[in-house]
Amino acid sequence: MRTVYVIGIGSGDPDHLTLAAVAALQQVDVFFVIDKGEVKEDLTALRAEILRRHREPGSYRVVEVADPVRDRTAAAYTEYSAAVVDWQDRRGAQYAELVAGLADGETGAFLVWGDPSLYDGTLRLLDEVDCEVRSIPGISSVQALAAAHRLILNRVGRPVLITTGRRIAGGLPADVDDIVVMLDGGTAFAQLPDAEVADVDVYWGAYVGSPDEVLAAGPVLEVREEIVRLRAEARARKGWIMDTYLLRRHPADR
Amino acid sequence: MRTVYVIGIGSGDPDHLTLAAVAALQQVDVFFVIDKGEVKEDLTALRAEILRRHREPGSYRVVEVADPVRDRTAAAYTEYSAAVVDWQDRRGAQYAELVAGLADGETGAFLVWGDPSLYDGTLRLLDEVDCEVRSIPGISSVQALAAAHRLILNRVGRPVLITTGRRIAGGLPADVDDIVVMLDGGTAFAQLPDAEVADVDVYWGAYVGSPDEVLAAGPVLEVREEIVRLRAEARARKGWIMDTYLLRRHPADR
Ligand SMILES: C[S@@+](CC[C@H](N)C(=O)[O-])C[C@H]1O[C@@H](n2cnc3c(N)ncnc32)[C@H](O)[C@@H]1O
Ligand SMILES: C[S@@+](CC[C@H](N)C(=O)[O-])C[C@H]1O[C@@H](n2cnc3c(N)ncnc32)[C@H](O)[C@@H]1O
Repeated sequence: MRTVYVIGIGSGDPDHLTLAAVAALQQVDVFFVIDKGEVKEDLTALRAEILRRHREPGSYRVVEVADPVRDRTAAAYTEYSAAVVDWQDRRGAQYAELVAGLADGETGAFLVWGDPSLYDGTLRLLDEVDCEVRSIPGISSVQALAAAHRLILNRVGRPVLITTGRRIAGGLPADVDDIVVMLDGGTAFAQLPDAEVADVDVYWGAYVGSPDEVLAAGPVLEVREEIVRLRAEARARKGWIMDTYLLRRHPADR
Repeated sequence: MRTVYVIGIGSGDPDHLTLAAVAALQQVDVFFVIDKGEVKEDLTALRAEILRRHREPGSYRVVEVADPVRDRTAAAYTEYSAAVVDWQDRRGAQYAELVAGLADGETGAFLVWGDPSLYDGTLRLLDEVDCEVRSIPGISSVQALAAAHRLILNRVGRPVLITTGRRIAGGLPADVDDIVVMLDGGTAFAQLPDAEVADVDVYWGAYVGSPDEVLAAGPVLEVREEIVRLRAEARARKGWIMDTYLLRRHPADR
């Protein structure tokens, strides 16, 4: 039997790794690496740093394959479309092949950004692969954002929605007042009509947890221009951006 | 200046601690402990185990205070009521007193269950206390549940709602198909009308991440009785229960 770990490695801070993740990655014979295009640089750097800290050089193998779709933009990912299905089919075949390359009794692993349970397809792609899958949780970018702003995501007894930039572009949901937005290709919150965000605060962060972290927070009407500017600058500087934010509608309870 | 860490310690598995949490708790002079009533036993045990593993005996102090409200049931917590406000006021005063007990330059810490950003009031209670607060993320019970079932919480490009048992008792929200339920005093999903859950799967777990972990999953109509029974048994055995579940409405995409 082959075992495949899907290990959440956090979203930029190598110290966000859990002890369970360290123990798991020390069991691994082969690390599977998918070239993720735009975020490659930081993902590669974090993965390399983690292996450097927790494994002896030469004690493991790395098998790298290219992502079948090269420019997987946030927009393309959020759209459940024929393109996504097609990409998933090709990637599923790739994963099956990678796992089939393990010798019997060997352990493989995917090191995934943040937590494997949040907007990551690795577990889904392994669903139909013949192996024993173990999921090791990791600190998600949402948690890193919350920690950076010292936020509690929910208010007492109230819900929190985690959604995408595309989903809020048409307007904020009416029945939930705390909304975490991921996979936003272009500050969707800043394009909403004034009336809709008049009583909304935003807690924003890019590259959260990493040395490049940028944070900003305040009433949307007051800080949206600054965030649009910060985001554009950061993106220009690094060539790509990963950002997440909480939208919190008032009145705040305590 | 006094520093206070709010450190997420995971929801039952001492290996869910992050390296950052270990580093933080090694800086701490005084651990503040609030008697949490029903969950005291496991929280105390996890905290003790973590300190045993990561600190020398005698290298730190523990200051314990009773929770001002003794039987803080899940139901009371989820209700934003005068009682909650009153309890928070009294607890806020307690926290201020605890922190004031630190000598200048000393570091205090609260070790909180799961992640400090999810249904935990510690950060809120420290809001008005005169100290520098640092929040250290931890693996939440939601992530532990997802990992145990190898789940991805969202489906491609779709949202996920995190809410309470009380909130779904009146019916499931119509516009989101993946709903994580916490703070449920009594399997609210099992009381919903058949028609409403005919196309819903449940992924349930109690004491997730701990040696007492109990898991069950399947179509609500098929497994709800079993889960109600498992929950009652577990609760009778341990005297209290902490459980969480994902409700997933079909049709599933991939
Ligand atoms: C494909 S999802 C992967 C999420 C990941 N599994 C997690 O748990 O954070 C990518 C999205 O996560 C968010 N994200 C990931 N890393 C981030 C970071 N370091 N700072 C801010 N947002 C981040 C962004 O919203 C980005 O569009
Ligand atoms: C006051 S909230 C605290 C949540 C915590 N901050 C976290 O991140 O998991 C308590 C609720 O969390 C859930 N919970 C906490 N620990 C759990 C565990 N080990 N297994 C299942 N559910 C758990 C239950 O829904 C419980 O009612």
